[in-house]
Amino acid sequence: MGPKALSEWYRQVRGVTEELCASLEVEDFVLQSMPDASPVRWHLAHTTWFFETFLLKAHAPEHRSPHEAYHHLFNSYYQGVGSPFERSRRGLLSRPTVAEVRGYRELVDESVCRLVEGTPPEQLAVLEPVLTLGLHHEQQHQELLLTDLKHAFSLNPLQPAYVQGSAMHVGEAGGTGGSESPDISLTGGRATAGAAGEGFCFDNELPAHEVWLPDFRMAASPVSNGSYREFVSDGGYTQPELWLSDGWDRVQAEGWTAPLYWLPDGEGGFSVFTLAGRQELDPRAAVTHLSHYEADAFARWAGARLPTEFEWEHFAKRVGSEAVRGTSLEDRAFHPVAHPGPGPQHLLGEVWEWTSSAYAPYPGFRPLPGALGEYNGKFMSGCMVLRGGSCVTPRHHIRPTYRNFLAADMRWQFSGLRLAADG
Amino acid sequence: MGPKALSEWYRQVRGVTEELCASLEVEDFVLQSMPDASPVRWHLAHTTWFFETFLLKAHAPEHRSPHEAYHHLFNSYYQGVGSPFERSRRGLLSRPTVAEVRGYRELVDESVCRLVEGTPPEQLAVLEPVLTLGLHHEQQHQELLLTDLKHAFSLNPLQPAYVQGSAMHVGEAGGTGGSESPDISLTGGRATAGAAGEGFCFDNELPAHEVWLPDFRMAASPVSNGSYREFVSDGGYTQPELWLSDGWDRVQAEGWTAPLYWLPDGEGGFSVFTLAGRQELDPRAAVTHLSHYEADAFARWAGARLPTEFEWEHFAKRVGSEAVRGTSLEDRAFHPVAHPGPGPQHLLGEVWEWTSSAYAPYPGFRPLPGALGEYNGKFMSGCMVLRGGSCVTPRHHIRPTYRNFLAADMRWQFSGLRLAADG
Amino acid sequence: MGPKALSEWYRQVRGVTEELCASLEVEDFVLQSMPDASPVRWHLAHTTWFFETFLLKAHAPEHRSPHEAYHHLFNSYYQGVGSPFERSRRGLLSRPTVAEVRGYRELVDESVCRLVEGTPPEQLAVLEPVLTLGLHHEQQHQELLLTDLKHAFSLNPLQPAYVQGSAMHVGEAGGTGGSESPDISLTGGRATAGAAGEGFCFDNELPAHEVWLPDFRMAASPVSNGSYREFVSDGGYTQPELWLSDGWDRVQAEGWTAPLYWLPDGEGGFSVFTLAGRQELDPRAAVTHLSHYEADAFARWAGARLPTEFEWEHFAKRVGSEAVRGTSLEDRAFHPVAHPGPGPQHLLGEVWEWTSSAYAPYPGFRPLPGALGEYNGKFMSGCMVLRGGSCVTPRHHIRPTYRNFLAADMRWQFSGLRLAADG
Amino acid sequence: MGPKALSEWYRQVRGVTEELCASLEVEDFVLQSMPDASPVRWHLAHTTWFFETFLLKAHAPEHRSPHEAYHHLFNSYYQGVGSPFERSRRGLLSRPTVAEVRGYRELVDESVCRLVEGTPPEQLAVLEPVLTLGLHHEQQHQELLLTDLKHAFSLNPLQPAYVQGSAMHVGEAGGTGGSESPDISLTGGRATAGAAGEGFCFDNELPAHEVWLPDFRMAASPVSNGSYREFVSDGGYTQPELWLSDGWDRVQAEGWTAPLYWLPDGEGGFSVFTLAGRQELDPRAAVTHLSHYEADAFARWAGARLPTEFEWEHFAKRVGSEAVRGTSLEDRAFHPVAHPGPGPQHLLGEVWEWTSSAYAPYPGFRPLPGALGEYNGKFMSGCMVLRGGSCVTPRHHIRPTYRNFLAADMRWQFSGLRLAADG
Repeated sequence: MGPKALSEWYRQVRGVTEELCASLEVEDFVLQSMPDASPVRWHLAHTTWFFETFLLKAHAPEHRSPHEAYHHLFNSYYQGVGSPFERSRRGLLSRPTVAEVRGYRELVDESVCRLVEGTPPEQLAVLEPVLTLGLHHEQQHQELLLTDLKHAFSLNPLQPAYVQGSAMHVGEAGGTGGSESPDISLTGGRATAGAAGEGFCFDNELPAHEVWLPDFRMAASPVSNGSYREFVSDGGYTQPELWLSDGWDRVQAEGWTAPLYWLPDGEGGFSVFTLAGRQELDPRAAVTHLSHYEADAFARWAGARLPTEFEWEHFAKRVGSEAVRGTSLEDRAFHPVAHPGPGPQHLLGEVWEWTSSAYAPYPGFRPLPGALGEYNGKFMSGCMVLRGGSCVTPRHHIRPTYRNFLAADMRWQFSGLRLAADG
Repeated sequence: MGPKALSEWYRQVRGVTEELCASLEVEDFVLQSMPDASPVRWHLAHTTWFFETFLLKAHAPEHRSPHEAYHHLFNSYYQGVGSPFERSRRGLLSRPTVAEVRGYRELVDESVCRLVEGTPPEQLAVLEPVLTLGLHHEQQHQELLLTDLKHAFSLNPLQPAYVQGSAMHVGEAGGTGGSESPDISLTGGRATAGAAGEGFCFDNELPAHEVWLPDFRMAASPVSNGSYREFVSDGGYTQPELWLSDGWDRVQAEGWTAPLYWLPDGEGGFSVFTLAGRQELDPRAAVTHLSHYEADAFARWAGARLPTEFEWEHFAKRVGSEAVRGTSLEDRAFHPVAHPGPGPQHLLGEVWEWTSSAYAPYPGFRPLPGALGEYNGKFMSGCMVLRGGSCVTPRHHIRPTYRNFLAADMRWQFSGLRLAADG
Repeated sequence: MGPKALSEWYRQVRGVTEELCASLEVEDFVLQSMPDASPVRWHLAHTTWFFETFLLKAHAPEHRSPHEAYHHLFNSYYQGVGSPFERSRRGLLSRPTVAEVRGYRELVDESVCRLVEGTPPEQLAVLEPVLTLGLHHEQQHQELLLTDLKHAFSLNPLQPAYVQGSAMHVGEAGGTGGSESPDISLTGGRATAGAAGEGFCFDNELPAHEVWLPDFRMAASPVSNGSYREFVSDGGYTQPELWLSDGWDRVQAEGWTAPLYWLPDGEGGFSVFTLAGRQELDPRAAVTHLSHYEADAFARWAGARLPTEFEWEHFAKRVGSEAVRGTSLEDRAFHPVAHPGPGPQHLLGEVWEWTSSAYAPYPGFRPLPGALGEYNGKFMSGCMVLRGGSCVTPRHHIRPTYRNFLAADMRWQFSGLRLAADG
Repeated sequence: MGPKALSEWYRQVRGVTEELCASLEVEDFVLQSMPDASPVRWHLAHTTWFFETFLLKAHAPEHRSPHEAYHHLFNSYYQGVGSPFERSRRGLLSRPTVAEVRGYRELVDESVCRLVEGTPPEQLAVLEPVLTLGLHHEQQHQELLLTDLKHAFSLNPLQPAYVQGSAMHVGEAGGTGGSESPDISLTGGRATAGAAGEGFCFDNELPAHEVWLPDFRMAASPVSNGSYREFVSDGGYTQPELWLSDGWDRVQAEGWTAPLYWLPDGEGGFSVFTLAGRQELDPRAAVTHLSHYEADAFARWAGARLPTEFEWEHFAKRVGSEAVRGTSLEDRAFHPVAHPGPGPQHLLGEVWEWTSSAYAPYPGFRPLPGALGEYNGKFMSGCMVLRGGSCVTPRHHIRPTYRNFLAADMRWQFSGLRLAADG
């Protein structure tokens, strides 16, 4: 990419973040509803800090940060470049204000664009990888900003709506839906997993490597609300034999009786809290806000299982990217919509799909050099892999080799599942 | 008081609350820094809820609350009128916005003033006690609003200032100071404690009753920063024999080495975080932000003790109210100032003074009828009494019989001590 | 007392401790069921350590402890003589064995008796106060040993019995009982509280001092199981307006619905776990194993209140010691028995009676010199006073001025209440 | 196996458990030092319960359990056969006594042997799998009994020894040791993992299946104390870049500075707490009592990595079983000994070796039918696989396909590591 195209891309992606915040009140930017979630304002500042720390520090020595404390306050977890402000305390800060954080963004945007546009095309090769990483990082936080905000709103008895219901198109695109049963057969054997090297990918998608797959089967569609409601009605949350031991402990400890954000209507039915406020549950849309434990228990109840991440990826590559797209951030639906007609669908977008694979390095994995090596590598313990992106993932951010990861009890992301089975 | 005077007083007190918030950013209104502290916006709404619930509900049936959820959200702890929103979750709400809360205040103010001004003077007797209670309640929250904000600001590495240092007059009023040693002798015997019935008082100051006092001695001045710094230097925080057992446990568990908000300069000295940001420690001003445990340990180290609340009250009554006033909210100093010349001083205002008395009902105590009976009575366990008000207590809110109460480990109020000794 | 009498008394008291353990299995000596309770073996060792540390160290230099670690392991909380082993970890020790601890007791007993018997009568004055304190300390641990054991047994689904039911005489002594209503009037005014100086007392009972009492009323009998069961049936545990705020929080957090050890029979009735295993609830015996919060809530429900500790003491002194004795340790009933006939009763023995007084120093209180000053003084915060002893308190250990103290939420001691009211 | 051989094998394995307890005091059987550890007596009873529940219930209807509560008390985690007594409360039981538990063992042993010996050889096929599983289960608890006891002893300032030092032979077998560097090359490609079906194996070792291995390298010896001490000296515990994020959090939270049981001598050196009490650290023996985080950080520091469980198994199979045995329970060393001469060694026995593989079902995994399906399957989340057995694993219990699993922060098992690297 040339300097001009690069700075335009930069402005476009950064602009999306601002746009997502356009309808918020100042008060919505401040609070942290749990240690895993961050204030909206923190997302705005941290993504900015990322460009400042990894791009401007090295290449734009004349850039001055608005306040030296920002380097501490907006460092998420990079021990290699300083001491991060404690994650669970991000909601204890009323300053800098939203306006000051916006000023910080503008200042850094100006410095970045000046740097990029002033760099001869042949010398861009040094900047481009970091800038590209920073923009994919920004896109990750666009998704987190929304899921964190949703979590905070969900705790407020006023049930605030981020968008008006009409904007959500819930159910509008609905069709008959593809089968949720794992009835598409795939032949196993030697296969390649990981990114082939065209286009951007994160270090955790590399290197491409050989795996051995069994024969297996996959479902055309993710599991829907309708099917999951049957699991609930059938006593799914009361039968320990359906659950992993840790999952059952969590069910008991947290009193789970349905997915996060399902609101019982008192007569056995449910509505659901969404970014458009309280809405009817659409039985045809993908179930979401499940923990790995719930996804695993549902699969066992259904006589199936979760796919490994390699089965999932193999399926996605075989089916072909275009056929598999569902709702993305660009649709501004902010919620899964009803499944369309038959055939494999909604692999990319809609809901993240839990796999049975623990998050681990690929054979021969090498983290990025320097502090950027902390981006992914050090989190390779204690998490499960999710694949496919969600309805709030930017369309060009997701791909079949993309590996998301969460602890097995996390539910605030748009996470669901697709059934698999032995071949 | 006539209707007009009453509504003017109402507007004046309510206006002070607004005025105290005038310099804040919207972001400052939202967060809750610990379960014992509340967001500024919550204080604005809760005090409003108080008038709505206890005055308008009964006497202005035409009044409509902006949202039915407010009755739940802004109830602090009154089980008798509904179910309070959980105290530790007050910081999880970004809505209603500050503007909406201000609208709520205006609406209620209008209803209250219309009610009061439309009531014939001879029928005011029913309203006046509740209105008066509500205004004293409002004044209590003016103080809490500032101490809660101070706590939140103190956790921010940016060290925001609520006022500019020049506004604080730290040390300006300084003089030689009265003696901090308990060398004023008082004769014991039968004495009356509690409010005599002229002017407003809370139910916990009643009934006036007989107590038997020993001969005792009191200090002219509260303990100063200078004296407390000697205690620190002398290893006060490292000697278990100076501490109550619970206090020593807390010192160990929390790593206390100085009062809350003292900031070590690395060379054995201290600066202090104030509502005007980080400032030099004035050795002549009263030490503050002590727990009961620290006040008690200091007194033991000094070869003295804390007074009982009855000794304190007897001393205050004997010395006379005018002689004993120090800094109040009206001075807008927002911090204790240096002690003036010799003689008894600073009993009212400056810092709350810990006593050795557990908070308990007076003999014959009767809580107010109805849910207002929850105002004080149900907290009569697990707390120690503090007397005298602080530099952020409104001048006309405090009196010699006033009983404040806090758990022994609380430090975020402006709490200090005055030494006493056996006669 | 002469040397011979002193050593005989020593052997007698120490022997009671051993005798109380005679029926236990080795396994019963080891475990700690909660931080507030200690293993039986620890009681045996700690009381021995007390004599070794405070008597033998100073006066029998030739005495050698079996193991130097004992000085650390069996120190309860005396910071002045070393570093106590952490209280909550007392159950993590399987060694020294019970046999070794018995050997430790024998060794120390021998040294103590040799010391005492070898001291000329005229020089005994130095030893006697410490020895006496040690024996009263031993008696306190006889009671604790039983309540701690009871707590541990209560958690075992096998419901072990410390004694056979027949030994308990539950209800055997039953009569019509005195009135539980506060209908005995006492005239207030100036009164003396505290120990007059004849016979042993703890430092916390001193000095005797003047107090001013209101006119008040007291009940002849402590509250019975029968009356308390009415409170339970009447929804006592579901009405927040009956409870102190801290108490209500505890009711909610712990799910209290009845006194500790009451076992619902599923039909609204209760049996009770006792040191004789599961037994029928005797409606005529004093209710016990109440927290202060429950005692306070019951009193409010009954339209009465708890007495202050000074009212209680005044009542006990007026009624006369002999009239007021109930079941003691010597009766080997290990549980309250039915109240006898009318008239004031059961002030000493039966159940500890919660008062409304926080545990605080008397005016002019001076702790014992040296580390023994830690015996009582440093606990004078955060506790409420109980008076009168229980069915497992040794008869000669208790007296009308005796002050026991517990945190308001503690229930594992034999604690009940007697109603009082304004005169 | 014939009935006679089967009952002899049963008696032999059960006898080893008793023998391991022969030197213990009764007190040692009672306590639980942390939720992950169980009292010795509980191990004795639970293994007995296993035979009673899964063998006698179905096949010996005339068998009577000594107490109906045992079925609840000694159920570890089998929801399918009842409600297990809470794991973290196993140390709250002083009854049944050790003698009663031994009686329980004898009674069940008698019933089992009568059943087995009375079954015609041709009908044994039904019993033998469950009996075999029960005996391997018993052997697992032989190991746990020792590691749990070690943990409890380690918390006692008296530092009790389970065996005398002379019995431990620490260092006796020492030689020059094999290389700890990953310098043995193995060629990757398609390989078979899992148990081939001859001899007993657990369900989690099945089915045998194809995996694709990269070229890789393995070390001849596990990492030694000497090498690990270099890591410690080099600041291994102070450099966040060496650690997984969760691991670094744990290092900070727990204050780890060395492996569990290493005792600093104050001069940079260490001794180590063992089942023979405090001993010198043998630099030639395998380092042990590491968490997965520590093993992973050491490997990163050493420029290597942990092997996957499939690499480990492939290596073990290629090297050959006999060459790879180290210290086992039968050696009664109770601690790793110095490595012998060069060449691959100590794969079986000595220390469990952490792998980089999360514990997950093999493709096509089927849990055992009924409640026995809970044996392994439901724990397949949140754990890492360890391979190879330890110095307290019975020799005939371990094999190259054996999969142990622990949470990544567990340190109380004899866990170490062997370095691997990319080929």
